[in-house]
Amino acid sequence: MNKEFLIQVHERVKPHIHNTPVLSSELINEISGCKVYFKCENFQKMGAFKMRGAANAISKLTDEQKSKGVVTHSSGNFAQALSLAAKKIGVKAYIVMPESAPQVKKNAVRTYEGEIFESGSTPKEREDLAEKVRKDKGATFIHPSNDDNVIHGQGTAAMELLEEQPQLDYIFTPVGGGGLIAGTALAVKYFSNNCKVIGGEPKNADDGFRSLQSGKIEYNDSVNTIADGLRTNFGDRNFPIIKEEVERIILVEENEIVEAMKLVWERMKIIIEPSSAVAFAALLKEKEQFKNKEVGIIISGGNVDVANLPF
Amino acid sequence: MNKEFLIQVHERVKPHIHNTPVLSSELINEISGCKVYFKCENFQKMGAFKMRGAANAISKLTDEQKSKGVVTHSSGNFAQALSLAAKKIGVKAYIVMPESAPQVKKNAVRTYEGEIFESGSTPKEREDLAEKVRKDKGATFIHPSNDDNVIHGQGTAAMELLEEQPQLDYIFTPVGGGGLIAGTALAVKYFSNNCKVIGGEPKNADDGFRSLQSGKIEYNDSVNTIADGLRTNFGDRNFPIIKEEVERIILVEENEIVEAMKLVWERMKIIIEPSSAVAFAALLKEKEQFKNKEVGIIISGGNVDVANLPF
Repeated sequence: MNKEFLIQVHERVKPHIHNTPVLSSELINEISGCKVYFKCENFQKMGAFKMRGAANAISKLTDEQKSKGVVTHSSGNFAQALSLAAKKIGVKAYIVMPESAPQVKKNAVRTYEGEIFESGSTPKEREDLAEKVRKDKGATFIHPSNDDNVIHGQGTAAMELLEEQPQLDYIFTPVGGGGLIAGTALAVKYFSNNCKVIGGEPKNADDGFRSLQSGKIEYNDSVNTIADGLRTNFGDRNFPIIKEEVERIILVEENEIVEAMKLVWERMKIIIEPSSAVAFAALLKEKEQFKNKEVGIIISGGNVDVANLPF
Repeated sequence: MNKEFLIQVHERVKPHIHNTPVLSSELINEISGCKVYFKCENFQKMGAFKMRGAANAISKLTDEQKSKGVVTHSSGNFAQALSLAAKKIGVKAYIVMPESAPQVKKNAVRTYEGEIFESGSTPKEREDLAEKVRKDKGATFIHPSNDDNVIHGQGTAAMELLEEQPQLDYIFTPVGGGGLIAGTALAVKYFSNNCKVIGGEPKNADDGFRSLQSGKIEYNDSVNTIADGLRTNFGDRNFPIIKEEVERIILVEENEIVEAMKLVWERMKIIIEPSSAVAFAALLKEKEQFKNKEVGIIISGGNVDVANLPF
């Protein structure tokens, strides 16, 4: 791993993604007590940063592998990302989703021509079906967050942010399965001087926080959080990077997530999903620690049901 | 009036405004059947294009006039715009609002240090109180839409849009009091080759449409529309420009406004107010007429109560 390697990752995904804008607001700066730069991956294709990792992973396949397609299990943004990236590159995508997943999410995958396989709702049922599809189709399995190429792809959002704002003291990301924060940590390691990476995580799904404390991957017994993208846990590919490179993880309450989300909607006039608001909520929660600093925040996505809001 | 004059207007307001981004979306283009460029005045200071006209009008005052303040009657975005522009330029702003105006709008004006005078709810009561304040304070009255300097200031949004996308065939704006569409028409006249200006107006407040038909300023008996910024009528300063320079006005139903608004929220991930959605709804309604054309749309603002949505 080095700088040149990550530059090649960026070149590989560039044709398939937007270089999303970095937005700021005087009022948000006043409220936060520091200078905040939002890297707006809610404006990314299919509405989330996951497009980056999916595009990198599929682009790296051999022609033989491409001809047989890719498979993943996800009911969230990675399902859409893998479907759209696969469509753009001319590869078949098989998506394992719980039968109980919302119809709107199934429709989004179908819009991007992903082929859905419906599983039971437990992780084991999901994984077993993905493994069966992998074998039956000869497809390549791509994990939504615990895959080196996915991790590297996700890091390109922070690379672009640092290219535009190289002076940043901190970059905040939400903490879910670990792909985004691990990729961000690698980008920060190779493309900044003294920038530190901080995670925001829902207190009601605090596996990441506990993993950093104990030094091994911890799991959630329950995941009662509105931040539906952050219910998953770290894996063996991303956790070593996170353990080594991430400064700390800040936990936030559900009402803090909703308030941060509403603040961004009202003041920035942009639509961000609850998972994205978690990183900003973490900054607000401990804003005395970051007074007068320059802070980047990865707004991870904007896929939210606008007819069913928490405020 | 000439090109040089409008360039000076732009130079005058530039220190007080954002040059807002122009956004587009492949999916919106597909749905619309043409190339659409959104000039995002929802990202403007205080959340709407009205900042431009207010800043121009106040900047043009003499020092003597500035020392005595400005006054307007508005319960909408112009109340906030005049307050903020006055604050930035160091001028006192007196805002006449109906006593019945929502508390959230009064609070917004106070945030920008505007001083509120509460009137009865009829136009006559509003105008009488504004006239009284003008006399008592020696302040300069600035009309929200029927004022030359306001009209010229509003035109700078289209100037910036044409600077970025000079090939546009059409620019759509919402039709309310006429300041934005008249200013846009002047900008288009002097800064484009063959671009045409088209207005979108709620069928439930169709005074503008009827005014173009009859050739004189028409009024609404009732204004039962969600597009609360578009309930006002043309005036003697802006109507002659509109009559001369605007191609036509397209009327849209309430459900078409809501659908267009929801589409932009979901696909563009930006927050636009109902009045802004009217211009896009007009394009969608007659999209066969604009097939494969290049169309700019002025997204006039993003001030909406996100806790009280029409979908």
